[in-house]
Order: sequence, then C-alpha cells, then structure tokens
Amino acid sequence: MDHTTFRYELAQQLRVDSIRASDAGGSGHPTSSMSAADLLAALLDGHLRMDFQHPENPGNDHLIFSKGHASPLLYACFKAVGAIDDAELLSFRKFGSRLEGHPTPLLPWVDVATGSLGQGLPVGVGLALAARRLDRLPYRVWVLCGDSEMAEGSVWEALEHAGHEGLDNLVALIDVNRLGQTGETMHGWDLESYAARAQAAGWRTLQIDGHDQEQIESALKEATNSDGRPVAIIARTKKGKGVAEVEDLPGKHGKPLKDPAEGIRELGGERDLRVTPPTPEAGAVPHTFPSRGSEPPAYDIGAEVATRKAYGEALRALGDRRGDVVALDGEVSNSTFSELFREAHPDRYFEMYIAEQQMIAAAVGMQVRGWKPFASTFAAFLTRAYDFIRMAAVSRANIHLMGSHAGVAIGEDGPSQMGLEDLAALRAVHGSTVLYPSDANQTVQLVEQLADRDGICYLRTSRGAVPTLYGPDERFPIGGSKVLREGSDVTLVGAGITLHEALRAADLLADEGLRARVIDLYSIKPIDVDTLRRAAVETGALVTAEDHWPEGGLGEAVLAALAHAGVQAPVRLLGVREMPGSGKPAELLRQAGIDAESIAEAARRALAD
Amino acid sequence: MDHTTFRYELAQQLRVDSIRASDAGGSGHPTSSMSAADLLAALLDGHLRMDFQHPENPGNDHLIFSKGHASPLLYACFKAVGAIDDAELLSFRKFGSRLEGHPTPLLPWVDVATGSLGQGLPVGVGLALAARRLDRLPYRVWVLCGDSEMAEGSVWEALEHAGHEGLDNLVALIDVNRLGQTGETMHGWDLESYAARAQAAGWRTLQIDGHDQEQIESALKEATNSDGRPVAIIARTKKGKGVAEVEDLPGKHGKPLKDPAEGIRELGGERDLRVTPPTPEAGAVPHTFPSRGSEPPAYDIGAEVATRKAYGEALRALGDRRGDVVALDGEVSNSTFSELFREAHPDRYFEMYIAEQQMIAAAVGMQVRGWKPFASTFAAFLTRAYDFIRMAAVSRANIHLMGSHAGVAIGEDGPSQMGLEDLAALRAVHGSTVLYPSDANQTVQLVEQLADRDGICYLRTSRGAVPTLYGPDERFPIGGSKVLREGSDVTLVGAGITLHEALRAADLLADEGLRARVIDLYSIKPIDVDTLRRAAVETGALVTAEDHWPEGGLGEAVLAALAHAGVQAPVRLLGVREMPGSGKPAELLRQAGIDAESIAEAARRALAD
Repeated sequence: MDHTTFRYELAQQLRVDSIRASDAGGSGHPTSSMSAADLLAALLDGHLRMDFQHPENPGNDHLIFSKGHASPLLYACFKAVGAIDDAELLSFRKFGSRLEGHPTPLLPWVDVATGSLGQGLPVGVGLALAARRLDRLPYRVWVLCGDSEMAEGSVWEALEHAGHEGLDNLVALIDVNRLGQTGETMHGWDLESYAARAQAAGWRTLQIDGHDQEQIESALKEATNSDGRPVAIIARTKKGKGVAEVEDLPGKHGKPLKDPAEGIRELGGERDLRVTPPTPEAGAVPHTFPSRGSEPPAYDIGAEVATRKAYGEALRALGDRRGDVVALDGEVSNSTFSELFREAHPDRYFEMYIAEQQMIAAAVGMQVRGWKPFASTFAAFLTRAYDFIRMAAVSRANIHLMGSHAGVAIGEDGPSQMGLEDLAALRAVHGSTVLYPSDANQTVQLVEQLADRDGICYLRTSRGAVPTLYGPDERFPIGGSKVLREGSDVTLVGAGITLHEALRAADLLADEGLRARVIDLYSIKPIDVDTLRRAAVETGALVTAEDHWPEGGLGEAVLAALAHAGVQAPVRLLGVREMPGSGKPAELLRQAGIDAESIAEAARRALAD
Repeated sequence: MDHTTFRYELAQQLRVDSIRASDAGGSGHPTSSMSAADLLAALLDGHLRMDFQHPENPGNDHLIFSKGHASPLLYACFKAVGAIDDAELLSFRKFGSRLEGHPTPLLPWVDVATGSLGQGLPVGVGLALAARRLDRLPYRVWVLCGDSEMAEGSVWEALEHAGHEGLDNLVALIDVNRLGQTGETMHGWDLESYAARAQAAGWRTLQIDGHDQEQIESALKEATNSDGRPVAIIARTKKGKGVAEVEDLPGKHGKPLKDPAEGIRELGGERDLRVTPPTPEAGAVPHTFPSRGSEPPAYDIGAEVATRKAYGEALRALGDRRGDVVALDGEVSNSTFSELFREAHPDRYFEMYIAEQQMIAAAVGMQVRGWKPFASTFAAFLTRAYDFIRMAAVSRANIHLMGSHAGVAIGEDGPSQMGLEDLAALRAVHGSTVLYPSDANQTVQLVEQLADRDGICYLRTSRGAVPTLYGPDERFPIGGSKVLREGSDVTLVGAGITLHEALRAADLLADEGLRARVIDLYSIKPIDVDTLRRAAVETGALVTAEDHWPEGGLGEAVLAALAHAGVQAPVRLLGVREMPGSGKPAELLRQAGIDAESIAEAARRALAD
C-alpha cells in the first residue's frame, strides 16, 4: 500500500473505531471525530514523533486534543499505535475505564484534560514555551482545535502569545467542519476568516482540504519547516465524513450513530491496521538551570513587611536554590513582586501580559514537563481564569498560584481590585491547598513548602505592610495553625489582615478582663481540625473574621472542620457583607465589621449569650 | 475660541483635573488619563449625544471606560459637563465618595463598573445589541479601551461578536499609549497590529495621532458614518502626555505626580471650561415586544422531566407574557433548552457562540437598558465567566444565569462537563441568589420569580429526568424550603438530584423504623434559617447531601445558617470528595457517596453517635 492509500485506510479505521467506541459507550461524539480522522491518520503516519511505549521520553512530541469531545478519535489513534487494545477501546465512557468521555491524564499519553473548549491551544503554548525556553529540546506541540472553540477568547490569547513569542514548534490543526453543537459556527467554512485572524497574530497559515491526503501531507511537511512563526493548518472538513446518515448534517452532534453497522459498511468495514509513528531522536536531555546555595529571606520580628513582598523575595531565593522553579505573571509583577524573581532569573520568568487564562494554561503546560510554575496576579483577577484552574485539577496538574491584594484592606482602588471570593473559589477546587499567611516569615516558609506540594496550590497575600509576628525559624506546616494567644473565654480566628485585627481585639478584651485565644489559621485547606476542636471545647465559643465575603471562606471552613470533628460550639462569622467602595484600609475594615473593635464586640456578644 | 483651540484647552483641563484628583486622593492613575484626554475632549465637544441632566433618557449615547483606571479622566469629564462640581472631583477615592478608584454605577452616568480589564468592550457589545435589536434606537456606544487590555481574550470575543453582528453603532477608542503597568505592551506603538486584528474580525479601523485634534475630529466624524461595521479608532498617544515628569516614561503607572504643581504649570494651569455635549434627538421611545397571555407549563406529579427542560419551557412561557425577557446562550441551547425560547421569540434570543465571557457581558449590557436577560450554559462553563459575574455584582446588575448539567449526575461525559464548584462560586458573589430546584414544577415557579429579582440570580439545573414531586399549584418562595417528610429522628437535607436520593434514603430508614425528616433546600441563598433551626432542635442531627465538592456549597450553607441561628447540632456533610470519571449517573452518585444508601448510612451513624 502506498502512503496515501495507507493513510486513507487508516483514517477509515479511525472513523470506524470512533463509531464503534461511541456505540459501545452509548454516547460520545463520533461525528466530531470523523471530520478530523484524515488529519490524525497523516499525523500518526510520519509526523508525530512519539514513542508510545515510553511516554515519559523527554524527546516526545506532544499531542493535545483541544476539542476534547473528539475523544473517540483519540482513543482510536491509541489503538492504532498499539497503546490500547480493542477491548479497552470498547470500554469507552464506562464506569472505571480510563477512556473517559473527555480525555484526562489517567492515560499516560494525555498531557492534560480537555473538554472545556478553548483550553488546549493555550496549554499548548505553555508546552511550546517549555520546549523553547526551559527544556530547550526540539519536540513539537500539535494541537487539534475545533472550529466552534475558536470563539473562546482564550484561543485568541494563545494565538497572540504564540505569535509574539515566535513559537514555531507549535502547530494548530483547526478542524473546520462548519457545524457546532446547535448549528453553523460563526464563520462556517470561511477558512479565510480564521486565516486572517491567525495571520494578524503572527502565524503562518495553510489552508487545505482536510480530507485530501496529499494536501494534508504537504501542509504537515510545510509546518515542520520552522520559520520563526507558529503554524495553523486550517482544514475544511465535513462533520461525520463518510457516512450518509450524518455527513455534514445538523443535529448530529454528540450522539452515537443510529445505524452504526451501516455506517461501518459505508466506511469499508472494520480494519486492524497498525501504525508506528516516527520515534523522537534518541538521547534528548532537558536543559537544567544551575542552582546555588541561597538562604530564604528572614525578617526581624516587628518589621513592617507586606506578605506580597515577602512572596517575591521568597520566590527569588527559592529560584536560586531550585532550577526547576519558574514564574509567570499577568503584567502586574511590580505589584505581586514576582519582578524580584524576574530580575534574578530572567530565563525562567514568563511575562503573560494581561491574559490570565493564558497565564494559567501556560503554567499547566509547563508542569507537564516537570517544571514548578508559580503564577501570580491580583487575587481578584484569578477569577478570570477560574475555568482553567478547575480544569487544571482535572488534569491532575501541580501549579502554584499567588493572588495578591486580598480584600477590602487594599483600600482606595475599590471593589473591582479586591479579592473577596478567591478563598471560596479556590477551596472548591478538587485537591487544592489554600494558604493565607499573616506575616513575612510565615509567607517565606509556606512558599518554600509549596514547590513540592502537588495539586492546585493557592497562596493569598495582602497589599499593605504589617508587622512581622514570627521569627524566621518558626515552622508553619501546611495543615497547621498557630495559637498566638492562649485564653479560655473565647476564641478569635483570623488569617492575613484579620489576624492582626484579632490580636488587637484580644488586647481590647484583655483590658476588660476577658481572655481570648487567638488562632492564626494560615492554612485554610487543609485545615487544622484538632486545634479548632480544642478551642471549641476549651473556650466554648468562636469568632471568625475574614477579609472576604462570608460565603465559602475562612468562616465556613471553620464550621466544616468543627462539624467534621463532631464538636458543637457557637461560632460567629465576620466577613464583608456590603459592597465596599474606596477609602483607607482602616476605614474599610471598620465599615466591613472585621476590624479589631468589631471582632471584640462579636466576642463580647458571644460571651453574653 | 475655534473648535480646535477649545478642544485643546479642554483636554488640558481634563489633564490638570486628572492630576488634581489623583493628588487629592493620594493615589490613582493620572498618566493613563492624560493619554486619552484629547480623545475625550473631542468626544464631549460634538459627538457624545448625552443629556447629563437626564441620564435615564433612552436616546442617550453610552460611554464606557473599559480602562476603568482612567477614572480621573472620566470624573474630570463629568466636571467639565457640569455633572459634578470641583469639590466632588477632589473627593476622589475618599471614603464615602461616589468617585471611587474605578468607576461604578453609583454615578448615574456610569452604566457598569470597570476596573477588571477587558470587560468594557464586551459590555459595550451588549449595549449595542440592545440598541439594535431590542430598543431599536439610534443611540451609539463609545468604549474607551486601553492597549494593555487588548491582551484579554474577552476583548477578542467582543471584536468577533461585534463584527459578526455588524454593530456599526459601536465605536472603540483604543488609547495606544504603549506603556502597561510594568513595561511596554506586547505591541508597543504598532497600531497596525491592532488594526489587522480588528479588520480580520470585520471592523473598520482608523489610525490616528491621538493628540492631534484635527485627526481626532475627522475620525470621530468618520466613525458615525455607519457602514455596517463597528469602528475602532486606534490612537497613538503618550502616557502622561504634556508633563515632562511622566510623559512616555516607564514606571509612572498608577500613582500621583511627584510635583503636581509643576505638572499643572506645564499644562497651562487650571481652567474652568464647560462643555455641553450634543443632546440626543428628543422623544426616543424604546421598542417594546408584544406580550400575550400564556400559562406557565405544568407537570403531573410523577411525570419524569429534567429541570433543565422545565427551565426552557418556563422561560418560553415567561417570554410570552413579558416582552422584556430576553435569552442568551453559549451555543448549547439544545442542552439548556433555551432553544425553546429561541424558537418562540427569535427576536429576543441571542446566540453568543462558545464565548461565555461575552455572553455574561452582553447580559450586563442589556440590563443597563432595563431588559431582563436570562443567560444559560453548562454550570461548569459559567466558571469561564466568573470574573464577569463578580464584576456584574459591582455593577449592581440584574442578570439571571442558568447553569445546567450539575454534578456527577450527568454521567458519561466526565468531570470536564460537571458543574461541581458553581454553588460555591455563585454563593460568593455579593447579593447573589442561588437556587437549585429538584423538580419541574418547582423550576417553573422559580423562573417566574427570577424575572423581577434584583442582583445576580443563579438557577442550577440537572441533566437527567426526575419524577415530578410537587403539584403545579405549589408555591416556592425564594428563601424558603419544603419539608417533604416529617420525622423526628434525623434530618436529611438535599436539593436537586440529592433530594430524590434523600427521599429514597428516608424510605430505607423507615424500613428500619427510623423517621427521617427530609428538607428540600431549593433556595440555597437566601436560605431558610427557621426551618433548618427547627430541624436541628427537633431532630437533633442533620445530614446534608450535595452533588458538588464539599466546599462552599449546600452543606456549608446549612452550617452557616445554623451558626447564624445560634443552634448547635451535629451535621454530616456529604459531597463529592474524589475526582469522578465517566459512568452511569447511579454509579457515580454511589461512588461519590451521595446516593440514597450513603445518605441512609450517614444518618444511621449520626443516630449511633
């Protein structure tokens, strides 16, 4: 069989297997798979440099199905290369199968979970950046995009960044099958509209008939002739190609064929072709960055330091010692102090401009290759990338996020800049870690621990300088807390800025003869159940204070911990209950009812009950 | 004074007042204001058709500062038109002032809050859509954009949509001052790079020197010659224009001038010019859509109906009766059943394609003009627009969101499609309403109430059909709950799918002689504190079950309600604690430990304690 014939036959097999898997699973997206089958057949047979037996080989290319619903096609490819067998293919979407409805890294050849559209290309940008600037290896990143998902702004962020960085190791295969879930896409088969946009962002574009193996081969070959620009292969295809029941018809999205046997017959029946993709060059060794001894920063007790600044200083020092730590920022590095890392380690700093979705996606891409990305912006603006953070958890990614400018304590900038929902949002991410330090030395210790912590790790920092409470040798295990004042009348729980207010509240109460215990709950998830339980039992009542909306934050975390511990005690939750405006930090803390006087007053009421 | 001279002088006044306000406030962004002062002087003097005395005039143009940090310029404009006086200008950023660090609709001439970059243009698209398709009035929407914010994907979503819809009543003024917060933007002064992108999206572009009044006038005039395309005026400007201390210099972002007196001197001193913008044509009357009598849908008890389907049917019927209800969807209208509204009311349906940020922004824009937008997509994909939802609350917007496909109960599609953090995220929005109906008739009643409810309203629906529990005449006030089984041994609290599991759990327990009370907590925020308190007191123990991560959802809402009520009782929280995969809904509910048997087992343990 010549190449063209083989690829035609292989593509037909991929279609047949997509139909079979979806039929066996009882649901799925065979038609979205069939449109891209010819592209994938050609990619596997001669272009994707991938050793499927050794997915950990650092020389491997990377293949991301940004249109994750085309999972039947991906799994059919895995069968065609011998990575899975036919029995596993037919386990598609069944309970316990690795072949989920949308791909996840439970499969060793899948780097990241997809299925929320418009994320694969930005993650591909992260991998291509890792190849170019971190690993310094010639692997290539191939991303299969749907045409519907081109409507997501995140795709345009990716186009911009890839063009700006000149990532000619990145190839987007855009499967323009014209039909979305409910009807025609915005641009239908107007390939030129996609090409114009990509060209404007600095990409090279190749427009082809996505079912013509000669045009596909020529485009794939051309795409690997690097000229400093990323490449978009814009392929005109037909959804459901090859089967009359579904080909180029609306209303055929996301469901198995009604007559799969007839569809398979039209495609020439089942086949059992095997394809061996080219292997990457042997002996690829990722670049490593030199490290050197460097002490973490240390602050004198009482020194006035903002936790965001301690973050930057800690990250810079961590970067000295560890060549695998990298930093990204959303164009606010002089506010988050990631600029200190950038100045010390410019090779490992990535300016993501004001594109938070691309920032998180890039971090996810980099951690695929084992790098330890720390991504920072204002806590409020991490909400811009919440879907990316959610999906990063599905990707089992290990990323470290820092959100600065927490709460009303930022003062004059007003509510648009105040992170007031970040604790709730980040707690509600599977397997996440949520930390909220209250002084500089604590921040340093937590940053040090984060680098080796798995999952989605979040560190919340504050804008204003606060007095350093702890000595530099104090330890703050994740999942712990600190009892800063002993007392048996009532417990005050705070973190970050509200810990300082709670300490002042304890002073106010002490003047009245009331002995308040004060807990620094720097680790909000995981949470120190034992210390909270003991406080409930020993002091009988708690007051929590947080610079955050009352929902889903520190206060409710405490309630959940006590419920989990099976202890009952009255808890008063103080949080921001009215929309703040501008003002001095002290004025806004007072107005929100989370300043020292408000905390003391809540404690008095708790004791009066 | 001729026009050009007047505008030059007015622009200098706007600069001077930006400097003065920032100096008085002790913080702010004078340099980002100064770059755009010439554009705004020209806009006010002859182009912005705005009756500042009657901001409610439906004929008024709309002006959105997408670069909200240029608030000193906006407030200087308000002073120049006589809307505020100089004393108020100097209250900038002070506690209690309407002139917050970033604009909010506390000021009657501000439609929406800005300050999270990249949101003003997508909101402007919503307003322009409202003008064209709803109000059917000739008002124009002017949006001042920064160049830094063009990096946000949401801006490209807006460019795409405006181009696709041919919104020639929308003008973007792009202030290309080259400098971002930390350094040069991605494109510097390369106006052509912005023009190429906007042109590719179907915009008309005009490149000008943003400090040349003749070029500005010619561009503004040209922009109002509608030709079916939105217009981008791409203006080369200098940050801090006119003052040597800051002009076109890095490191001068977001702070008052060091020597404001010298800066004011360089600008020719203070002025007290007044400008009267053109008034809109008198007698503008917004279009209204005819309404007709129509009964809400009603379902027989026991009928198997998915709540998402009931949503679509309820919305269609609501749309019959109310011409002010409009619907938007993120290209999943056949999944959310908003397609039923589209089919009945095509003039009031907006296809937003897979661009959730633009969808929410468009809803925010439409509600500015009094329309009642209902925007729907999968609950999981609302996370994509979380920053827009957060900012909608700062905008005091009234929008109605529906998120379908909640939780693991969707089954085979897998975790990327499962809304598992939506309750936490939406609860943590200021003033939000969070509803989660468990049957079709309840869904109908809640949709009916939502239309007149203020704030960010969220309705969570489920994919699978469930038996109808309630008759069509039953009422479900927001903030209420329903006790579906009386019992005194233990209380089971569920909503949506878990309510049905809780009812089955109560049956299992009844077989063992245990009488469980079952509460349908369809209103998660506001929450029915009284019923929960009574249950805690009367049954002594509660079990909550939710198809959601354990953090920030139904269970913690119950804990917070009990804490607020001052009642202590043991509560066991059941939620999704491990990352789900694909499978049948029943298999996944079982695995997550939120099915009937798991709820019953938790109740047994609660009773054994």
